[in-house]
Amino acid sequence: MKTGEVSPASIIIFGAKGDLTKRKLIPALYNLYTEDHLPSSFAIFCVDFLTVDETAYRNDLLEGIDDFSRNGKADKEKWAFFSARIFYVQGDFMKAGTYNTLKEKIKEFEEQIKQRGTRMFYFAVAPRFIEPIADALWRAKLCNRDTLDRIVVEKPFGSDLDSARKLNRYISKRFKEKQIYHIDHYLGKEMVQNIMAFRFANYVFEPLWNNKYIDHIQISVAEEVGVGKRGGYYDSSGALRDMIQNHLLQLLCIIAMDCPKEYEAEAIRDAKVRVLKNVRTWTTQQVFENVVRGQYTPGEINGMSRVGYRQEEQVAPDSTTETFVAARLFIDNERWKGVPFFLRTGKSMPRQSSVIMIQFKDSPHKIFRDDIEPNQLIISIQPELEIDLMFESKVPGLHMKLLPVEMDFMYKDAYTQSLPEAYESLLLDVLEGEATQFMRADQIEAAWKVVMPIQEAWEKYPRKQLRLYEAGTWGPSVANAILKPYAKEWFLLPSREGVKEIKEIKEIKEIKKTDKPAITAS
Amino acid sequence: MKTGEVSPASIIIFGAKGDLTKRKLIPALYNLYTEDHLPSSFAIFCVDFLTVDETAYRNDLLEGIDDFSRNGKADKEKWAFFSARIFYVQGDFMKAGTYNTLKEKIKEFEEQIKQRGTRMFYFAVAPRFIEPIADALWRAKLCNRDTLDRIVVEKPFGSDLDSARKLNRYISKRFKEKQIYHIDHYLGKEMVQNIMAFRFANYVFEPLWNNKYIDHIQISVAEEVGVGKRGGYYDSSGALRDMIQNHLLQLLCIIAMDCPKEYEAEAIRDAKVRVLKNVRTWTTQQVFENVVRGQYTPGEINGMSRVGYRQEEQVAPDSTTETFVAARLFIDNERWKGVPFFLRTGKSMPRQSSVIMIQFKDSPHKIFRDDIEPNQLIISIQPELEIDLMFESKVPGLHMKLLPVEMDFMYKDAYTQSLPEAYESLLLDVLEGEATQFMRADQIEAAWKVVMPIQEAWEKYPRKQLRLYEAGTWGPSVANAILKPYAKEWFLLPSREGVKEIKEIKEIKEIKKTDKPAITAS
Repeated sequence: MKTGEVSPASIIIFGAKGDLTKRKLIPALYNLYTEDHLPSSFAIFCVDFLTVDETAYRNDLLEGIDDFSRNGKADKEKWAFFSARIFYVQGDFMKAGTYNTLKEKIKEFEEQIKQRGTRMFYFAVAPRFIEPIADALWRAKLCNRDTLDRIVVEKPFGSDLDSARKLNRYISKRFKEKQIYHIDHYLGKEMVQNIMAFRFANYVFEPLWNNKYIDHIQISVAEEVGVGKRGGYYDSSGALRDMIQNHLLQLLCIIAMDCPKEYEAEAIRDAKVRVLKNVRTWTTQQVFENVVRGQYTPGEINGMSRVGYRQEEQVAPDSTTETFVAARLFIDNERWKGVPFFLRTGKSMPRQSSVIMIQFKDSPHKIFRDDIEPNQLIISIQPELEIDLMFESKVPGLHMKLLPVEMDFMYKDAYTQSLPEAYESLLLDVLEGEATQFMRADQIEAAWKVVMPIQEAWEKYPRKQLRLYEAGTWGPSVANAILKPYAKEWFLLPSREGVKEIKEIKEIKEIKKTDKPAITAS
Repeated sequence: MKTGEVSPASIIIFGAKGDLTKRKLIPALYNLYTEDHLPSSFAIFCVDFLTVDETAYRNDLLEGIDDFSRNGKADKEKWAFFSARIFYVQGDFMKAGTYNTLKEKIKEFEEQIKQRGTRMFYFAVAPRFIEPIADALWRAKLCNRDTLDRIVVEKPFGSDLDSARKLNRYISKRFKEKQIYHIDHYLGKEMVQNIMAFRFANYVFEPLWNNKYIDHIQISVAEEVGVGKRGGYYDSSGALRDMIQNHLLQLLCIIAMDCPKEYEAEAIRDAKVRVLKNVRTWTTQQVFENVVRGQYTPGEINGMSRVGYRQEEQVAPDSTTETFVAARLFIDNERWKGVPFFLRTGKSMPRQSSVIMIQFKDSPHKIFRDDIEPNQLIISIQPELEIDLMFESKVPGLHMKLLPVEMDFMYKDAYTQSLPEAYESLLLDVLEGEATQFMRADQIEAAWKVVMPIQEAWEKYPRKQLRLYEAGTWGPSVANAILKPYAKEWFLLPSREGVKEIKEIKEIKEIKKTDKPAITAS
């Protein structure tokens, strides 16, 4: 576990002018600083190709904080202190000179503080720059102390199993495994981090967490946005590579993993990789039976009209890239044999909402006349953070009539403070040398092994069963078919109102059906 | 199960001038009427010794509704209709003439409606009248159709095992078992009725409901009131007879019973009686090791001073009657072997609150450094109706720190309607011939068998270990000792604010301990 101690640090960001730096990394570092989590001495070196005036650059970053930080506008004094420690380093990622300049600057900082501090190199760059930067860092001996120096790599980690393997080999020849942090910001999300606590610090759900009691599990990550300005990248990637291979399979690991030997990075990642290795791989024919791909057409979301995917900027007008995936997976081990895991992600959906829904089996012995709905445990990652248990309860009144109700735990009721962003948590982890929430190379490869058969089947038959869905809908309706016979339709993802609202919708339906108010049930 | 059909009915209440009739029975019947649950034709005959003007009597009952009904003041028109069907029958319970008059009145009503209706005879009388009334009804052949005629008997059902047996034999010689309804109003409480639904219509808790996963169970029924005007009765009874023998042991049955074969009165009562028969009986010495009795002394509740028990009206100044009981019981069967059930009840406590707390065992494998509190499932019967699950959760923030939180289901959030009173539910049950929520004679005797060793030990040593406690406290502090090693102290019973408040109190303590706000945990 993390020590909570952070030694003086140089933070180097490759891709200084990128969106990620402005929207996520600098606001996260600034919040860490204002909340006293950064070391007393630190310097942030932002590297990019363009020639930029340092003051103008800092002001641009300030704008990023003002616009995107969870805490709103920056404090003047604190920004003055913080920004004085941000340095723009102009340089071509492909040229050795860049790294010499960088080396001088880092040395200068370390001489000032009279200490060889931690060095964190963050690769906020396009995939093609990862290898050259890694190689240059290695040649320049900038990242050669394995206890102090770390590199942080953003997805995509390759575009298929082969390229991921090649990339991993390339990097691991130059750095020790413990220096390499593969970041998946989903693992930094507050609720995602809580899942392990929920599962392993409590003993009320873990005994039920297996194929004897669980009927099926749905993992949904819905995005309201379309591809936006990322059409160029996205059209060569698609939802399978962009979302399933990383975020959704990582959620699958956390939900399905065995309890690790201890709460420690290697033990946790060992447990996760075992899950991925046990996922059943589909044949080409099975892919078309178990996985649905979709692509959005023009539609409307929240009253705003949306273009279809093929009309997006930098997208081929006859593109067959999927913007929606729904997949049925099985984990062939003792715990999960026979329990389907349904994964679903899509763009241009009615709202942004990420939810894990665990549906329990029916009781083997039923004593009530009413239709009993199975218990559901709902872990809502966004927009609201909440854990809900749906259970059957007697409707208050003079007769024994049952309807589902929910027990809930909502962060917004329990905590008044604003929650740290995923990047704050993860950047601090790297500075502290805590790798629990990062993916190990073998995990990435195991995840690729899961998606490769799907990717290959779709590449072989690029137009087969590519389902269109209107922007603003929950995806192609045929995606419900793969749920059979476990469910009729996908779990309705909650809005900001939380799961309660969904239950109320259901209840109103139910009452309409019986044509009587629930309270005076027949 | 109930059919929901109620045939025309004569409702006969013995004890017309008693508190129960005015405060509970008539308001309950009135509410049943206003909410269309009474049959289209009904008549209420209220029998008592005093000579009373019928109009004055009806007005007195109206006052009872205005003061005690959950719906507040009666509606004028509805009261006019309802009260026209209430008839005062003057008569001595001990004289045959009373029953002849009654018979004529019932016949007259039945001739009017041209139907032999249901007859419900409610014994709202002192225990000494039960046998004479039963005998007279039998002799007068007033209650001789076993499909239509029912008697309702209020506790106490005897004052010990022998008298209960005698009473049961006396009654069962005159009526069929299915005609006899032993009422314990606790079984009519909304949340108590929901426990069976919660346990048996859901399959998330039942698999944990045994000695492998449950550490111990606490059942508490705390009363804020003292003995009030009931000192005469109470001083010869005490908390063991008045509360443990019925309410608390009935709650124990519902919590500990196996799933019945079907949701039907006989199957349910079979399952409950099996629980009582499996309760381990204590020797005299074991009674003093496992059961604590207490008696309240003067004190203060909510800023009001209170007299001690021995200063109450009609209580002997050297009384050794207990007003508090805390008992450790074991159920010696496969499901519960080794799991202590802690029962506690008392008068003059800080507030009225009835709660069942199920504490789960710790996980056999702990991976987090923090002190983990065991999971608790809290079923709150009053003052608020709620079900809470306390579980460990990651405190939002940049490090893995755990604290207990609660998932809750609160009736007051889920339902806007006012809940039916226990007596409404139970009276309708009797009219419908539904005996599920009533005690069978063998259950009553089995409950007496559980308490007899305690009662006998205390009678043998009337002053031994009689613990005094100040009014306004949670009972003698020595009551915590019997919890060892399962808990340090009894579960803190919630006020109207609900369990949430208790958790907040704990959390504040916790935060003070660490001297840091939870959110920026170390």
